[in-house]
Amino acid sequence: MRIDPLHLREIVRSALREDIGWGDRTTGSVLPAPPMEATGWISTREDCVVAGVDVAMAIFSILSPQARCTATAADGDAVKAGDRILSIDADAATILSGERTALNFLMRMSGIATATRTYVRLVEGSGVKIVDTRKTAPGLRLLDKFAVRAGGGSNHRFGLDDGILIKDNHITLAGGIRAAVVRARAAAPHPMRVQVEIHDLDQLEVAIESGADAVLLDNMPPKDLRKAVKIAGGRVILEASGGISEKTVKQVAETGVNLISIGALTHSPKAIDMTMDVAAREVAQPDENDEEGD
Amino acid sequence: MRIDPLHLREIVRSALREDIGWGDRTTGSVLPAPPMEATGWISTREDCVVAGVDVAMAIFSILSPQARCTATAADGDAVKAGDRILSIDADAATILSGERTALNFLMRMSGIATATRTYVRLVEGSGVKIVDTRKTAPGLRLLDKFAVRAGGGSNHRFGLDDGILIKDNHITLAGGIRAAVVRARAAAPHPMRVQVEIHDLDQLEVAIESGADAVLLDNMPPKDLRKAVKIAGGRVILEASGGISEKTVKQVAETGVNLISIGALTHSPKAIDMTMDVAAREVAQPDENDEEGD
Amino acid sequence: MRIDPLHLREIVRSALREDIGWGDRTTGSVLPAPPMEATGWISTREDCVVAGVDVAMAIFSILSPQARCTATAADGDAVKAGDRILSIDADAATILSGERTALNFLMRMSGIATATRTYVRLVEGSGVKIVDTRKTAPGLRLLDKFAVRAGGGSNHRFGLDDGILIKDNHITLAGGIRAAVVRARAAAPHPMRVQVEIHDLDQLEVAIESGADAVLLDNMPPKDLRKAVKIAGGRVILEASGGISEKTVKQVAETGVNLISIGALTHSPKAIDMTMDVAAREVAQPDENDEEGD
Amino acid sequence: MRIDPLHLREIVRSALREDIGWGDRTTGSVLPAPPMEATGWISTREDCVVAGVDVAMAIFSILSPQARCTATAADGDAVKAGDRILSIDADAATILSGERTALNFLMRMSGIATATRTYVRLVEGSGVKIVDTRKTAPGLRLLDKFAVRAGGGSNHRFGLDDGILIKDNHITLAGGIRAAVVRARAAAPHPMRVQVEIHDLDQLEVAIESGADAVLLDNMPPKDLRKAVKIAGGRVILEASGGISEKTVKQVAETGVNLISIGALTHSPKAIDMTMDVAAREVAQPDENDEEGD
Amino acid sequence: MRIDPLHLREIVRSALREDIGWGDRTTGSVLPAPPMEATGWISTREDCVVAGVDVAMAIFSILSPQARCTATAADGDAVKAGDRILSIDADAATILSGERTALNFLMRMSGIATATRTYVRLVEGSGVKIVDTRKTAPGLRLLDKFAVRAGGGSNHRFGLDDGILIKDNHITLAGGIRAAVVRARAAAPHPMRVQVEIHDLDQLEVAIESGADAVLLDNMPPKDLRKAVKIAGGRVILEASGGISEKTVKQVAETGVNLISIGALTHSPKAIDMTMDVAAREVAQPDENDEEGD
Amino acid sequence: MRIDPLHLREIVRSALREDIGWGDRTTGSVLPAPPMEATGWISTREDCVVAGVDVAMAIFSILSPQARCTATAADGDAVKAGDRILSIDADAATILSGERTALNFLMRMSGIATATRTYVRLVEGSGVKIVDTRKTAPGLRLLDKFAVRAGGGSNHRFGLDDGILIKDNHITLAGGIRAAVVRARAAAPHPMRVQVEIHDLDQLEVAIESGADAVLLDNMPPKDLRKAVKIAGGRVILEASGGISEKTVKQVAETGVNLISIGALTHSPKAIDMTMDVAAREVAQPDENDEEGD
Repeated sequence: MRIDPLHLREIVRSALREDIGWGDRTTGSVLPAPPMEATGWISTREDCVVAGVDVAMAIFSILSPQARCTATAADGDAVKAGDRILSIDADAATILSGERTALNFLMRMSGIATATRTYVRLVEGSGVKIVDTRKTAPGLRLLDKFAVRAGGGSNHRFGLDDGILIKDNHITLAGGIRAAVVRARAAAPHPMRVQVEIHDLDQLEVAIESGADAVLLDNMPPKDLRKAVKIAGGRVILEASGGISEKTVKQVAETGVNLISIGALTHSPKAIDMTMDVAAREVAQPDENDEEGD
Repeated sequence: MRIDPLHLREIVRSALREDIGWGDRTTGSVLPAPPMEATGWISTREDCVVAGVDVAMAIFSILSPQARCTATAADGDAVKAGDRILSIDADAATILSGERTALNFLMRMSGIATATRTYVRLVEGSGVKIVDTRKTAPGLRLLDKFAVRAGGGSNHRFGLDDGILIKDNHITLAGGIRAAVVRARAAAPHPMRVQVEIHDLDQLEVAIESGADAVLLDNMPPKDLRKAVKIAGGRVILEASGGISEKTVKQVAETGVNLISIGALTHSPKAIDMTMDVAAREVAQPDENDEEGD
Repeated sequence: MRIDPLHLREIVRSALREDIGWGDRTTGSVLPAPPMEATGWISTREDCVVAGVDVAMAIFSILSPQARCTATAADGDAVKAGDRILSIDADAATILSGERTALNFLMRMSGIATATRTYVRLVEGSGVKIVDTRKTAPGLRLLDKFAVRAGGGSNHRFGLDDGILIKDNHITLAGGIRAAVVRARAAAPHPMRVQVEIHDLDQLEVAIESGADAVLLDNMPPKDLRKAVKIAGGRVILEASGGISEKTVKQVAETGVNLISIGALTHSPKAIDMTMDVAAREVAQPDENDEEGD
Repeated sequence: MRIDPLHLREIVRSALREDIGWGDRTTGSVLPAPPMEATGWISTREDCVVAGVDVAMAIFSILSPQARCTATAADGDAVKAGDRILSIDADAATILSGERTALNFLMRMSGIATATRTYVRLVEGSGVKIVDTRKTAPGLRLLDKFAVRAGGGSNHRFGLDDGILIKDNHITLAGGIRAAVVRARAAAPHPMRVQVEIHDLDQLEVAIESGADAVLLDNMPPKDLRKAVKIAGGRVILEASGGISEKTVKQVAETGVNLISIGALTHSPKAIDMTMDVAAREVAQPDENDEEGD
Repeated sequence: MRIDPLHLREIVRSALREDIGWGDRTTGSVLPAPPMEATGWISTREDCVVAGVDVAMAIFSILSPQARCTATAADGDAVKAGDRILSIDADAATILSGERTALNFLMRMSGIATATRTYVRLVEGSGVKIVDTRKTAPGLRLLDKFAVRAGGGSNHRFGLDDGILIKDNHITLAGGIRAAVVRARAAAPHPMRVQVEIHDLDQLEVAIESGADAVLLDNMPPKDLRKAVKIAGGRVILEASGGISEKTVKQVAETGVNLISIGALTHSPKAIDMTMDVAAREVAQPDENDEEGD
Repeated sequence: MRIDPLHLREIVRSALREDIGWGDRTTGSVLPAPPMEATGWISTREDCVVAGVDVAMAIFSILSPQARCTATAADGDAVKAGDRILSIDADAATILSGERTALNFLMRMSGIATATRTYVRLVEGSGVKIVDTRKTAPGLRLLDKFAVRAGGGSNHRFGLDDGILIKDNHITLAGGIRAAVVRARAAAPHPMRVQVEIHDLDQLEVAIESGADAVLLDNMPPKDLRKAVKIAGGRVILEASGGISEKTVKQVAETGVNLISIGALTHSPKAIDMTMDVAAREVAQPDENDEEGD
């Protein structure tokens, strides 16, 4: 699913406002006088899975409706160090003022997509889905989760309002799993499943009997996960979570759980090193200037 | 310098809106009926330098003006795995609904502060300042840069409007270093220094003569940095930048440059693992209900 | 689940801005000079189920932090014509300027709650849930759906993002039920069920086999609904929808479907007639003015 | 007067954000891969007076600048069950994601226009104007009042800032009609008339003598209204208000009052049943892709 | 009428954001470490009529809810050079960061109030009202017009939506005064008067006969104004406008017109010179720190 | 440097909302029925230096994307009374509704540019720069400062965040110049100079030794300014400020200071008298209506 265009414009606009503030004083002063046309190329300095191309394109087109962007890689594509991802034809000021913001988005999102792809490859064939968490950078959840999909992962809930996940602290205060699950089922909007987190195999049967649709198995060793799969017998969706790394993910996948959630995908992505090069661009003189508009 | 309170409230409010959306369906349904008072404790599972305590406190106080937070660690403090950072006394719903957002901020900001502290320690005694860049998570620049300060680093410019930095692409389009620096000096608001990026020692003298106040030495080996320090002879501020790691930073610091900027501090921070525990809290029955307030 | 306080303040603030604009010219000019304390009572002129009390209270407390509201009826309470719902102690200007906006919310929301209660009573004992739709007044969805809950109904999804409902037009463009359901299952965030709308009993088995978790039976007569219940045999959640009125709802409930959705609850609620009376209020002179606050 | 375009875009944008949230998960997943062109037709299932065509068109053009809408009925037109109101040529996702929001606006606004037209027809020939009140859905006042005009009615003030109406509660607190009217006249921006509400014929002469430009006659029987017309003798504008229904409006109009205000037009409109049908659309392959714009 | 509190907070908040941006770097760095309590006094360096006291107080209380402001002059008071207007007890950072913004509002608003008072005094006894225009600083209309009232003037319409004024260009395009006035009367919300601008005495009778409630006499010499007063004979409100200065206003007032509008009051006010002094403040140590709260 | 386009659109949009509110009732009612094409010309009635042309053009293009503006004078041009600055081809409603807002911006900004030019001319040849202050109209700082540049002046800092200026009150609370300067240097983002205000020549050497990069000499007579220039000997930037008028500016410039700041440029600009004329415009009938677009 593409990034919702209304959201996209808002996130991008607000990122530009953050970086540009009163105006780009460097670009605004160093360029020679008549507005200059230029081309910029964004390329990667590391092998990676790309994510954020639409975001980068939105940046330049918000800065200038005349900007024309051409993507040479699509979200989800694996690219090599040195590959070009995107080129921009626009006036020089637009390209220079948007450069850092575009790179900041691309570098983070591609970092997330690349890490996700690694996990997805590691569990290939197991049928398990790699899913994200709510451990995202505040303000960037939509994009962080888009990048996970670009990497081949799946999304868990986006926020506290579009999924029910009864965690440890909820259970403590609710007075137990049963009470919590029963209350949640009664109140949930009908399109939502009720999921509950457990730390102990003993809690699994209670969770299922109380009506949970899904269970999060927190920090359990593969051996326990396997038992849980057996106990559940397909009655609920099982998610393994907590402390799963590139080293252990295959083993976890083989236990038969349905989902493996990895917080690190979004809470500690390593930004991909990318760069932009710019060159002045010859522009054919139009015969008449009757309508280049606003 | 503390985080500007008007900004802080806006960032926090918008992060809460992102996570809570229509409402926290889990918390809203699992708690027993009369609102319940509780206490939450945020603690770290890793040694780290803390940053973001004020942010976390703002989260709970925006969710409920009645929430009372007590910090047991201050921004910039080095804490040990297991240490408590913050406790919150509030109604249970406030604590549960704010938990993830508070942790997301604290984990990222403490990650930045911790990485910064490492670099600062490595150059201790050299007189050089570790500074950040504009490679921050879009929307979080103020907090990312605050975290750098909490770690003992210094800030470079915040955006394109509060500092002038003539980079490679500017020079290409401006027609050379001299033209760019001269134009920038003429146009700059007077409180701002003019800085220019060079890649070659040959460019240094031109940069200085054209009137640059500071020079960014991009990706130069220590040997060249040392030469640059000699050539400059104190006439300009010198910043080393590009590809500097924990392994090389000490060597760079010893060249005599004034500033070392490290993009990775903010573009790829490793989140610190933190957690929240919650318990119900006995509340003395008030004799009279004369001040339920707003 | 209570109304999320961040949302509530935003909706109320923006409703007040709409009504007050540059300022309340009548109240601002007709009151005698020194600010006057007053009490306002909101009461109903019709029997109804109340909803919106928190909204009304938020209105006055946003206009003046000193306002003190006392609810004499709670959301969901059935009240009689003439009953008081709420009283407000505040300066006269606050009460007069907030009156219309408070009444507009209460009258609409109580209208929705009252209609919902009627349907809920009609199906009592059947185990079926009365649910709402997305046919709400633009901008008021959160409150419209809260009012449905206050009336004893349940909520369907809140928007296009927190539930999947494959409707007629989707099926047409997707190339059939199977294609649509399969694609939706693959892409859905895992906490969400996949629901599909059908118009014909023949489509039911396909829907179930394709993996739908719930089926909306559009505009089917009770006879067909009963057949659907039999065919489904508990494998999916069944929702009856379309053209169901107070006259037919009981009959529909008896077919054994799980949910009955009624668009009219929110698209055409009849506002409950309510009114506010105001009187000046004697205020004991404080001995000292040490805390006039903010 | 058309709907102010700046307002229109804001209302529509915020309604779309409300419905779409993080994104339209159904549409985003069920459509086959390459973006698909489609046509949607909105038609009515009931006879009605249409209002909201511009609003519906704005919805699709905000979702996609490439969307092309064609209105086949104009605001204020009387249409028959089955008539088409609007068609949309756009990519399928735009049409499907905007459908509900467009219908929600059109159904409510047409409901208001239709009810207004009924009243206007009932008083035809009497010279009296049917006017609205501030009993509108919070956030929708501009559109609710536009719909009244589309139905042939006239607008009363839009908010507390663009008209002065001294009501019961104002008079109580001001210390009488005379004091209130005199103070209001002194303070009113000069383009505004001063109107006062009375409940008793005895108050009319006082109101006029104090300088009121208009008088609202609250809940008076036709007999009293006729007396009021005689007493006023054209010195002030007279508005009848309160409890006037389709049954009584003609009789009230014949009393000679200038205005009849009807709260129910906007506080309890019955939504008109409308629907959208969608079909895939063949798109001629462009010879060149030189202009797909932004 | 006081400044609407919802507007006030928004204007002030946005002015503070404009001035403070990322944070007050000077104040944030120069103060010694533990937060310091201070008192600030705003005083005037010129004789003037004060306006903006509530605005200044809102500034400090938005920056810090703990700030306590004491006004020693009220809006509309005539004060002498050297007089104190306002004192603020708050932490030093709040006072220093709010100083410039508070002064900017007070200096402009008091400039407007002072100029207005001069005109009002010059026409004293004539019964004519001095009114403002829409020639205000964009964004500051509410405050500019409040300052006019503080100076003793009256307000004309606030915007294009709360008054009807048919000007030269409207008449040209409408096809004449009669057509314009008749159309405006038919469409106007009933609480609004219809006013038309004329440049020639010949147009006055047409304007009145067409149904205008008020006429703006543009740039007419006193002799013509007197004739207009005679022709109108009390049938319409007459406003003199255009090129009226302190030298001519008395003469214009004596012609018998009802209103004199002066654009210069708000388009070219001379700011009053004001200043703030600050001193550290001894704060009694509280015995317990049980409620510093937020 | 041009006005940042993202800011420009926001300022203009919000100014239009302020003036238009619910809609332009006059224009909306007086024009004949089918939308009418027209041309408007803005011209000046006084000799002046123009500023704000881009702002005016943005106004009309935000009101209608079809509007076409042609500038006949550029920002910074000196024009004569009667000269045309701008023409607009658009539908009549767009021109009439935008007129006042466009003029309000142009009149203020041209007033600032004209006053600045006067000062700049007076110091021509001296090498000194005329700079502005933060004494701007709240909300208009970006435009006020742009107008200063259009007049030939230079900008001081834009806000509290993009420059450090230690003033009187800071020094008092910091405990002296030295303490304040030293702390500011330690905390300042490296691209910013540290400036300190002094009132006495004795403070100059301390300021310089403490590390100030610039010194503001407040209200000093030319004799003292000359001494300051001698003492500083080029070690710091010197700014003269306070009470400098057209009469004294040349004398101040001759003292050898680097900058002269003038608050009156922006706190008390005299608006330039400008006007708009409008005429209906013949529009060639298009052969086909294939692209009326959005």
